[in-house]
Amino acid sequence: MHTSNKPLTICIAGGSGSGKTTFAQSILDRIGRDRIAYLAHDSYYIDLAHLSSEERKKVNFDHPDSLETSLMVQHIRQLQHWLPVEVPIYDFSRDTRTSHTSTVAPQPIILLEGILILSEPSVRELCDIKIFVDADADVRLIRRLKRDIVERGRNFENVVEQYLRTVRPGHIDFVEPSKQYADIIIREGGYNHVAIEMLTARLKEMLQ
Amino acid sequence: MHTSNKPLTICIAGGSGSGKTTFAQSILDRIGRDRIAYLAHDSYYIDLAHLSSEERKKVNFDHPDSLETSLMVQHIRQLQHWLPVEVPIYDFSRDTRTSHTSTVAPQPIILLEGILILSEPSVRELCDIKIFVDADADVRLIRRLKRDIVERGRNFENVVEQYLRTVRPGHIDFVEPSKQYADIIIREGGYNHVAIEMLTARLKEMLQ
Repeated sequence: MHTSNKPLTICIAGGSGSGKTTFAQSILDRIGRDRIAYLAHDSYYIDLAHLSSEERKKVNFDHPDSLETSLMVQHIRQLQHWLPVEVPIYDFSRDTRTSHTSTVAPQPIILLEGILILSEPSVRELCDIKIFVDADADVRLIRRLKRDIVERGRNFENVVEQYLRTVRPGHIDFVEPSKQYADIIIREGGYNHVAIEMLTARLKEMLQ
Repeated sequence: MHTSNKPLTICIAGGSGSGKTTFAQSILDRIGRDRIAYLAHDSYYIDLAHLSSEERKKVNFDHPDSLETSLMVQHIRQLQHWLPVEVPIYDFSRDTRTSHTSTVAPQPIILLEGILILSEPSVRELCDIKIFVDADADVRLIRRLKRDIVERGRNFENVVEQYLRTVRPGHIDFVEPSKQYADIIIREGGYNHVAIEMLTARLKEMLQ
């Protein structure tokens, strides 16, 4: 174990429905959750407790300004110095931060995940391995429709309205341009066994 | 060594000037040339001995039809069955095959390289790891101009004429669309140490 060295920091970016979460979970499963400090950019959404319920609905959650990235950067730096961090727990049903936090202990591997994570220079410069999970727009939309309509019971019009109003513009403006900063681009992340095996081999080698 | 199993077959594709050869050479250097059977698609250019010197100049070397891919496929299959192969030696100054061949011995890793290699379904289906090395068109053009003008002493007009007549259309028609078949896409191959280390770790793990 490289406990005396600096942890290896990996970030996994990619659009909504690209398969990046499945890819990240495969890495957690293969390497072991006890050896990876995992931070999701989603945990750092800004608390909207000061806004009314109507105002919260107008917030663009696909824009970098909706996230407190500076706090995440502070946490990454702490983990890189082998210090534990207190990650906010967000209540997605109310768009507010709960009063609770989740303690993430330092580990030899730090895994960061998020749609907008590669679009942030302050995060990029802390990463040793930058991965972008890619999938075609129609395939990503199908996954999102399936998740929001079939799994979460939302209606089609509402999901498509949100997709066209914030998800799609956010992808074009921030997610797609961030692909250029990736060291490697992986198509169909969760089902890409070749890429999963390559990254797993690299991490196991580092842990030895 | 997995000598009793089937060798692992990797292909590295990407446009002219993308850095794919530098990437392939880095892998050969790190893993060792004695453990890799290396085949370049370039070695399989069709013999143009039957054409006049004028006719040879009109041949489009950026089109899949200029290569005898069926012979390369036969060689890959032989290497996958641990049999040596006799690779043609091409005389690029005359656009003809020489009467000599180069013997490539079977190894636990087979490494295939070529601009058009991922555009060939018959090659793709034989590969375990498919890599596409990507670089922007202007960066690739600069590398090509440098190579052809500075290193090979050709004149600017001639290089640009060939680029616009065959290299660019071939890239758009065959190379770029073949990117979709890659397991991973690597930007700036030769200088991408993250990707080189990931693939190296995967191959070392396989060789153990």
